[in-house]
Amino acid sequence: MTHKIHGIVSYPITPFNPADGSVDLPTLKRLIDRLVANGSHAIAPLGSAGESAYLTDAEWEAVAEASIRHVARRLPVIVGISDLTTRNAVRRAKFAEQAGADAVMVMPVAYWKLSDAEIFRHYAEIAQAVGLPIMVYNNPATSGIDMPPALIFKLFSEIDNVTMVKESTGDIQRMHRLQQLSDGGIPLFNGSNPLALEAFAAGAAGWCTAAPNLIPEWPARLYEACTRGDLVQAREVFYRQLPLLQFILKGGLPTTVKAGLNLVGFMAGIPRAPLQPLSKEGEAQLGAILAGLAAR
Amino acid sequence: MTHKIHGIVSYPITPFNPADGSVDLPTLKRLIDRLVANGSHAIAPLGSAGESAYLTDAEWEAVAEASIRHVARRLPVIVGISDLTTRNAVRRAKFAEQAGADAVMVMPVAYWKLSDAEIFRHYAEIAQAVGLPIMVYNNPATSGIDMPPALIFKLFSEIDNVTMVKESTGDIQRMHRLQQLSDGGIPLFNGSNPLALEAFAAGAAGWCTAAPNLIPEWPARLYEACTRGDLVQAREVFYRQLPLLQFILKGGLPTTVKAGLNLVGFMAGIPRAPLQPLSKEGEAQLGAILAGLAAR
Amino acid sequence: MTHKIHGIVSYPITPFNPADGSVDLPTLKRLIDRLVANGSHAIAPLGSAGESAYLTDAEWEAVAEASIRHVARRLPVIVGISDLTTRNAVRRAKFAEQAGADAVMVMPVAYWKLSDAEIFRHYAEIAQAVGLPIMVYNNPATSGIDMPPALIFKLFSEIDNVTMVKESTGDIQRMHRLQQLSDGGIPLFNGSNPLALEAFAAGAAGWCTAAPNLIPEWPARLYEACTRGDLVQAREVFYRQLPLLQFILKGGLPTTVKAGLNLVGFMAGIPRAPLQPLSKEGEAQLGAILAGLAAR
Amino acid sequence: MTHKIHGIVSYPITPFNPADGSVDLPTLKRLIDRLVANGSHAIAPLGSAGESAYLTDAEWEAVAEASIRHVARRLPVIVGISDLTTRNAVRRAKFAEQAGADAVMVMPVAYWKLSDAEIFRHYAEIAQAVGLPIMVYNNPATSGIDMPPALIFKLFSEIDNVTMVKESTGDIQRMHRLQQLSDGGIPLFNGSNPLALEAFAAGAAGWCTAAPNLIPEWPARLYEACTRGDLVQAREVFYRQLPLLQFILKGGLPTTVKAGLNLVGFMAGIPRAPLQPLSKEGEAQLGAILAGLAAR
Repeated sequence: MTHKIHGIVSYPITPFNPADGSVDLPTLKRLIDRLVANGSHAIAPLGSAGESAYLTDAEWEAVAEASIRHVARRLPVIVGISDLTTRNAVRRAKFAEQAGADAVMVMPVAYWKLSDAEIFRHYAEIAQAVGLPIMVYNNPATSGIDMPPALIFKLFSEIDNVTMVKESTGDIQRMHRLQQLSDGGIPLFNGSNPLALEAFAAGAAGWCTAAPNLIPEWPARLYEACTRGDLVQAREVFYRQLPLLQFILKGGLPTTVKAGLNLVGFMAGIPRAPLQPLSKEGEAQLGAILAGLAAR
Repeated sequence: MTHKIHGIVSYPITPFNPADGSVDLPTLKRLIDRLVANGSHAIAPLGSAGESAYLTDAEWEAVAEASIRHVARRLPVIVGISDLTTRNAVRRAKFAEQAGADAVMVMPVAYWKLSDAEIFRHYAEIAQAVGLPIMVYNNPATSGIDMPPALIFKLFSEIDNVTMVKESTGDIQRMHRLQQLSDGGIPLFNGSNPLALEAFAAGAAGWCTAAPNLIPEWPARLYEACTRGDLVQAREVFYRQLPLLQFILKGGLPTTVKAGLNLVGFMAGIPRAPLQPLSKEGEAQLGAILAGLAAR
Repeated sequence: MTHKIHGIVSYPITPFNPADGSVDLPTLKRLIDRLVANGSHAIAPLGSAGESAYLTDAEWEAVAEASIRHVARRLPVIVGISDLTTRNAVRRAKFAEQAGADAVMVMPVAYWKLSDAEIFRHYAEIAQAVGLPIMVYNNPATSGIDMPPALIFKLFSEIDNVTMVKESTGDIQRMHRLQQLSDGGIPLFNGSNPLALEAFAAGAAGWCTAAPNLIPEWPARLYEACTRGDLVQAREVFYRQLPLLQFILKGGLPTTVKAGLNLVGFMAGIPRAPLQPLSKEGEAQLGAILAGLAAR
Repeated sequence: MTHKIHGIVSYPITPFNPADGSVDLPTLKRLIDRLVANGSHAIAPLGSAGESAYLTDAEWEAVAEASIRHVARRLPVIVGISDLTTRNAVRRAKFAEQAGADAVMVMPVAYWKLSDAEIFRHYAEIAQAVGLPIMVYNNPATSGIDMPPALIFKLFSEIDNVTMVKESTGDIQRMHRLQQLSDGGIPLFNGSNPLALEAFAAGAAGWCTAAPNLIPEWPARLYEACTRGDLVQAREVFYRQLPLLQFILKGGLPTTVKAGLNLVGFMAGIPRAPLQPLSKEGEAQLGAILAGLAAR
């Protein structure tokens, strides 16, 4: 049986060795330990923050396998298996299943725009190839495809193992619509960091975020306040962490989260080119934000 | 002294006589009485819902004067004085002040796009002409001008009697930004109906809405739950009224609110051409939504 | 009989007296004489460039009447009668007809968005009220309403006196679509200055422009080259005047055209507030552009 | 020495074997022969139409090599080498050079948005790795990155072997701006099919298009009329082929071009999943359009 997924779903970045740019698995494992130990409710390797799109197939497989093994069932693991072709997405989903993942996350990726029918078939073929629960992931800013609520609801209703939805548009009305379409029945996960407070207010089951790489305790505090229904406390802890959430969104997660880890002495390397390290000016801003949050 | 404005700011529609399309002041007064008696914390004639833009100057003056007199200090009155030219906006602001308004609401209106400097001067000249508090109103969907948070904060900081902000973009990040810029110091009013829950969650002081014309008790219940910090109850009452909020936004407030009033037997006429009455199909949908809310 | 309209349709600005901001009819008449004498094929008062939206009804009537009388049938006159309400647009259309206009130009104006049916009825009621040819004007950037080609074609096909279309979106594909829908039968006028070359290449019958206020001979040269089918010459004269066309579009026509007239010694006042005069920096740029064009 | 590139740059699709979806090189070679023989001025394998993004590295190499060898210097060959990582784009550029390409085409590809500095470095590293001329390719609809004219001009000015620009936004103002920035010095290639007439009118050196797969003679006729400066003839041949250009753009090039080839008896297979074959309804429309063009 898979764990019931909820709360803070943490997205580790993928560290690279400074020397040759290869994947640095030992550092990844140490990062996973930090996330597991500090308030995460699930671990999700190979998402957008994990630079999944920039890895070779062999690298992707090494990260998937190492992550699942190292979490070692302490928490559920959701593996991002998105790929441009259906064939490779299916292959990755099977690999994740065999490696012991608890769920897979799937975002359709565009070069040529996809019709609703093409998107549906993409999900259906992946779903048929594995027995794992699937989290539908909508993030047009990175994927180039925007799935409207009606299509997402159709995927959820008609494909058995589509059981969760991660919405990263940052548009709270999408969440309202999905709640209405499913009569509150879809477990919704918010993937837009600066929308965290409002997504929980609107009834989200969880928050998919790379922020715990840097400030693991703050997202958990927001989740707890919202779970208690304490709006005043939720608002307070949200506005405290909002500058960090805004900063990592604006600068791109791999760039900013790796810079932040390096700043606090957890050496995580730099993102893969064409992505470049954060500027000195950006580092100074980020350092000030982190210092402000550490003060309390 | 003016009242301290907060909570549910109700926007009456402007009824027209079916016979000749002239303004129907007696019906407006009865509508105001309903709003005052059923949970409003302020009354705001001559807003977007009030078809202010479609009135002649003489009609505008008649509605302003009748509204202020009829509220008769039972609640604060905020009068919409927006106009394309600075000259006429100033004239209207003075009229509202002399007629006894508690505040004026001002939205810049575009034909030719305005620079930030032009918008600032527009507000400054209006502010200088009156002693009333001014509510800055940002609603690009109707006005064609989108004022970013930095400009709104500048208006608030540098013009003494700019004391409130109504944000109708529906973008919760604007509210976050204004809270951050002012360190929580700007009284924020949400003008996007389907964002009501999240705007209160984010710390809004009030909700500017035409919904009370149709369902006066529901917006008030949401405000009360949020004021108590009770997120569970707030979410419950929000989702109950959300279909109505979505419907009136989508169909245009004058069209849908007048149709709804007629449906419940409060004959309010139709909007002014080129606006047309709600279709029969739309009436059926609206009737079903209203019946659902009345059931409890 | 009305003149057959084609070629360069010139839009005079509306001069205001510097002292009190009132309409300056003598200057307007001198400007019209310049336009008539220098390559225009039609004169179109009270368009976007003419600040029609910023005038009172009385001012609008004075400009309409003076323009028609002063052109005195030397060229066709197309009067802009756009207004937010159908009632006032009809009133203006009748006024223009009685004053002797050759055609009226009509743009629907939004505060609340209009449905296709509402737009159609708006045009139909105006068309029924007058016997004049109507030019449908699509300019979403100023009006807030974007009429797709299918709707424009429906207006042209189903309303007898809708006989011309002015497209100002700057999207050449709209022109293609209108040509296709009408099998080349709609007289198309381009209202986007920096698209002038391509619109003529695509088969436009004319160019609606305020540029002749400043450089009357250049638009006419482009039209002549295109009429001759001489692409090389057309391209040459287009790129010469393009900096001016870009400048007046970007800065807003009333602001930039008035500044340009003042620069060349034709004192035309400033636009009406909230519009402000062109900045000193803008004046220097505009002066350089005009000097470059005068040099040859 | 490389050929001087201009005119019709034809983009072959990449055929797949119906049986197993593998690349079908013999059919590709026959297609290239048709393109070479019927009015193309250059051949550009592995572009958007060639489903380059959907190929494995091994497949990409096989297509690049086979295309260059089979063209065999009858025409210049421009190879698309775009990839998400700089490392793999460099690798592909070197491969293309060693295989004998005349130029490479490079589009930056986004998952995480790239800054101007990141884009510049991406191009600079590719340019340094090879001696070939580079065509900068801007197509935000497929790549998720929109390079403004100023950045493109910077690439052209500061990187020696960046010598050509392909603009596929469909925005003619980008072409104007690039002409102005470079004083007419950048060889501009239009990549938006329905803009072909206007791009030539504005001075484009060539048209990058997959249309010759289906109607090789028509694009060539347009180019010839424009080269002669004959606007009347250019307009005539453009409007004749416009329905085909609109259809292949709207439906996605691999999908529609492969369907069209199959319709005319040149069996080219179907696109790679998640892309699906054209619907029966679409096939009927396309068949009618092709029949109309063949009639003359």
